[in-house]
Amino acid sequence: MLALRSKSPGLELADVSVPNRSGEALVRVLRSGICATDIQITKGYAGFSGTLGHEFVGVVEGGDVSADLIGKRVVGEINVGCGSCHLCVAGDARHCATRTVLGIKDRDGAHAEFLTLPERCLKPVPDSISNDAAVFIEPLAAACGILERAAVSPSDRVAVIGDGKLGLLCSFALALAVPQVTLIGKHASKLNLADRRGVNTLKADDAAGLENSFDIVIEASGAESGFASALDLVRPRGTLVLKSTFAGTPQWEAWRVVVDEITIVGSRCGLFEPAIDLLASGSVTVDDLISDVFPLADGLAGFDAAAQKGAMKILLKPNG
Amino acid sequence: MLALRSKSPGLELADVSVPNRSGEALVRVLRSGICATDIQITKGYAGFSGTLGHEFVGVVEGGDVSADLIGKRVVGEINVGCGSCHLCVAGDARHCATRTVLGIKDRDGAHAEFLTLPERCLKPVPDSISNDAAVFIEPLAAACGILERAAVSPSDRVAVIGDGKLGLLCSFALALAVPQVTLIGKHASKLNLADRRGVNTLKADDAAGLENSFDIVIEASGAESGFASALDLVRPRGTLVLKSTFAGTPQWEAWRVVVDEITIVGSRCGLFEPAIDLLASGSVTVDDLISDVFPLADGLAGFDAAAQKGAMKILLKPNG
Repeated sequence: MLALRSKSPGLELADVSVPNRSGEALVRVLRSGICATDIQITKGYAGFSGTLGHEFVGVVEGGDVSADLIGKRVVGEINVGCGSCHLCVAGDARHCATRTVLGIKDRDGAHAEFLTLPERCLKPVPDSISNDAAVFIEPLAAACGILERAAVSPSDRVAVIGDGKLGLLCSFALALAVPQVTLIGKHASKLNLADRRGVNTLKADDAAGLENSFDIVIEASGAESGFASALDLVRPRGTLVLKSTFAGTPQWEAWRVVVDEITIVGSRCGLFEPAIDLLASGSVTVDDLISDVFPLADGLAGFDAAAQKGAMKILLKPNG
Repeated sequence: MLALRSKSPGLELADVSVPNRSGEALVRVLRSGICATDIQITKGYAGFSGTLGHEFVGVVEGGDVSADLIGKRVVGEINVGCGSCHLCVAGDARHCATRTVLGIKDRDGAHAEFLTLPERCLKPVPDSISNDAAVFIEPLAAACGILERAAVSPSDRVAVIGDGKLGLLCSFALALAVPQVTLIGKHASKLNLADRRGVNTLKADDAAGLENSFDIVIEASGAESGFASALDLVRPRGTLVLKSTFAGTPQWEAWRVVVDEITIVGSRCGLFEPAIDLLASGSVTVDDLISDVFPLADGLAGFDAAAQKGAMKILLKPNG
């Protein structure tokens, strides 16, 4: 089968065997989504060599799986825990020390015709969510995950820095929870996507003068400069949520975190259920966040398109 | 009068006028303490030019002050707020946007024969606290301030990185609140000071193998490497408290904060009352944390001594 594989660094389209992992379901991929993290991995982030991709929707074909799941459309929780440590036993494998992560750590991912995952990771997709939209369940879950990690109250003034896919999804998720959410970005066309959903928007150049004005600032730009901007915007004793992952070791003004007694909260993956509910109910829509759909066979071109400035979500369609 | 003044950078002993600030009490300094922050300021941190020193005990001599305070021994809250913003009105000037800070920001400090502070900043010192020990009220308050900022529960495994004055005081304060506190440092003689108070201690070289072992890690080393060590030691979803302030912009592995969903909590100044209570009751003792006492006239030599590797607290005695 075809698979887009990271060589850490680098990327290649390869012909590989259909995966077969004992104790796991075999899933035929319908769509996968290219994430900024995928692109970071091709630059060396996470040191991962293997099939990329962790955003997908697929159909259960077989493998070690309950009969009633066969033929069902599913998405998949990407963190696969050992199943026996205290975290896994408590039902949350996201920080299992020996976890594998789909398309990121020790586990081939979704930019392929097939993938495998344990049945416990699979979540059926309601019919009201299209294939294209279902690919957004994983990143929308990551956006909703902010609410798992940071105490956000209705009176909080919240800013999201970065009008890329992640920043937009964060602003959509937060705007459903608190009334005062401002998305700060550089691209009028992207800010418009938030604006039409009732999120306040602001061009980054116009954020001067708003120093110390926000109780909570989400850094979702993926740029090193985003953290410095966030430190400017957050009030003393406010909260700065870090969402972006990228290779490298940026510099930071650690002393400002001490003097202003900022709380920095790292946030990675979220639970899938809230994201499925938001998409199924139509509370969050994502159709206008899709730039293009490429056949998997043209996946290298898809990655090039995803890396372009201003690109929104690029989907890959393995069997199309 | 004599005063030790930062030239930002640099340090000089100068002969200056006795301060006279309308609406403030005049305090004759009995002892002041040299803090690592003072040394950082002489290297350019905080951009402060003026009389250094923010740890002191003194006697109220006059100025704009209630008659019953005259002749009383006092310490002083170092953040002087505007008195009218919502933070000051609520009784906590520590984050007033226009605050001055004794010996750090727009206000001459305590390494002098006299200083001024508003009466609201002054706290009488109980007779059971010696002059030497009273100088530790401000830094011990900063250590206790961790408990204001981070949710610490009795079952938490807490590590403090750095066996300097700040790290030791943090370990003393935390060990009174939670049973499992480990101080990690490089100097056997300093670790012994914690050990004899019932704090677990560990040489830094022996911390390998303890990755992800602590729920809460306090970075109090003042070294750039301390943050990386703290990231190693804290468990996923654990809390890392930043206490040290220093000039410069260190590098950090921001991605690890995201992937492991660490919470970083900046902590600066604490309330004085808990520290006064701990010293007055003898729950915390500090006599063996003092390396030497210098006359203020030999203050430059005092700063040299304080900057030596292995130095503990150096006190200055203006009138001795």
